[in-house]
Amino acid sequence: MFSLTILGCNSAIPSHGRNPTAQVLQTTDNCFLIDCGEGTQLQLSRFKIKKSKINHIFISHLHGDHYFGLIGLLSSMSLLSRTSDLHLFGPAKLIDIINMQFAVADVVLNYPLHFHALNDEGEIANTGKISVECFKVSHRIDCWGFLFREIKHPRGVLPEEAKRFDIPAAYFLELQKGKDYINKKGTIISNESVTQAAKKGKSYAYCADTIYLESLAEKVKGVDLLYHETTYLKNQEEKALSRYHSTTTQAANIAKLANAGRLIIGHFSSKYDDVAPFLNEAMEVFENTVLAEEGTCYFL
Amino acid sequence: MFSLTILGCNSAIPSHGRNPTAQVLQTTDNCFLIDCGEGTQLQLSRFKIKKSKINHIFISHLHGDHYFGLIGLLSSMSLLSRTSDLHLFGPAKLIDIINMQFAVADVVLNYPLHFHALNDEGEIANTGKISVECFKVSHRIDCWGFLFREIKHPRGVLPEEAKRFDIPAAYFLELQKGKDYINKKGTIISNESVTQAAKKGKSYAYCADTIYLESLAEKVKGVDLLYHETTYLKNQEEKALSRYHSTTTQAANIAKLANAGRLIIGHFSSKYDDVAPFLNEAMEVFENTVLAEEGTCYFL
Repeated sequence: MFSLTILGCNSAIPSHGRNPTAQVLQTTDNCFLIDCGEGTQLQLSRFKIKKSKINHIFISHLHGDHYFGLIGLLSSMSLLSRTSDLHLFGPAKLIDIINMQFAVADVVLNYPLHFHALNDEGEIANTGKISVECFKVSHRIDCWGFLFREIKHPRGVLPEEAKRFDIPAAYFLELQKGKDYINKKGTIISNESVTQAAKKGKSYAYCADTIYLESLAEKVKGVDLLYHETTYLKNQEEKALSRYHSTTTQAANIAKLANAGRLIIGHFSSKYDDVAPFLNEAMEVFENTVLAEEGTCYFL
Repeated sequence: MFSLTILGCNSAIPSHGRNPTAQVLQTTDNCFLIDCGEGTQLQLSRFKIKKSKINHIFISHLHGDHYFGLIGLLSSMSLLSRTSDLHLFGPAKLIDIINMQFAVADVVLNYPLHFHALNDEGEIANTGKISVECFKVSHRIDCWGFLFREIKHPRGVLPEEAKRFDIPAAYFLELQKGKDYINKKGTIISNESVTQAAKKGKSYAYCADTIYLESLAEKVKGVDLLYHETTYLKNQEEKALSRYHSTTTQAANIAKLANAGRLIIGHFSSKYDDVAPFLNEAMEVFENTVLAEEGTCYFL
């Protein structure tokens, strides 16, 4: 199961009580922080998400509203005596910025911080249960999207059937891989008779700051939940393009083309106090849309 | 008149709803921001202080809880189309950190940012009405205190008396300097008969993170309002020393030795939920003490 909590849904300038971008994706065994605008550590406290649980952080790009809260969070984790590993993914220069700030403050972290620079599209993390891929989006500076997929074994063992054929549990991994079983008498028990095709794993794709890019739909094809930025309403398409951002209609088009299960929209410009029109406009194109609302938790 | 608004009163880790250090000192013509912990721009909005009014920012030292909010604030000022000059004072490396972050984000500020590195004790700014001095405190890394003084002319003109002797307003500046006036008939009007000694200008001293340092009392002698950090209660004197911080009793002692008008205490450790004992302990030594409470405005 995935649960996604929105910590910040505004664009560049915090306003109307909305914070800059940050999200937490929680699974049974992992807690992924996606982007980390200023105030993220305060939002984590506010929504009672333990900083100590976060084991992977993904930074899409180096515009401040997506990472200015990172240095404070990393510092606090150390002051709170964290010792467990933390994996950080982001553009290469991110680690220089962090190192410079820790050096001047004479800070040595208590915990191992493993930095992974984003260079090529493809898998960047695999926890055994979750695979994370990054892909390029198109913004004013180098910017990345992230795709999280539950890893499912190819086949699921049917416990009652396996028991009926006296197949030992130690052999289940082989069954999951699709192998047949040969019992002591030499009888072949076909894989199909004791397993079933695995259910599709859940998936979540995060498309941070980007212009409308139809090729994105292919990259996030069939995801259960798609986050796509909508900085502007549809009548601001020209402005959106000039600032390398997207509109409601454009985000909804990507969701439709990708055949996503559900669309979540955010990164609202500070010029908008009321964001209800964003939802209306997106739903005209892609009905199963929700607004990224801070503190709200979306399950899948 | 000075008014001091507390934006953050906590130490390193934001907790118990308290933010890291930041204060705004407002005078008739100026708006000084003193330190700028993470979330300062949000606190400014919360307490309805316009970012555009701030013309000087003073950063005491490069521990994150005193400056991690600066880069976000500088960015927002630019996004909000600021064009007026901004003067920034802090340890030399601060500008490298800022420049590096703006460079990777491809940001060019709309407004002139004048950086002044803190090197020697003494006057660092003079607006004509306010003089600002910096002085060294003793912390784990290079750390500075700031002293703000209203500049008063040596003498104050008594308008009724000046009118009685037909002294033109154009000559008032000379009267303020202590000069006599000679009228058209050649009669000398003595300065004392048309002026009075100036009232003492108001003053505010800010002593950020420091161990107990008796010599500080001399540097802030006679200030109307003294802010001194109190990270710990008095029973934690040893811990305070080991972490280069001060206790309630120590801060109150400095206020007493300095013969300050009033003491304001803050930078509370996150280990304390209730800060009322801080006030009680400090008042035992220096009665005219108040707590730095976020959103509260102290006038002098």
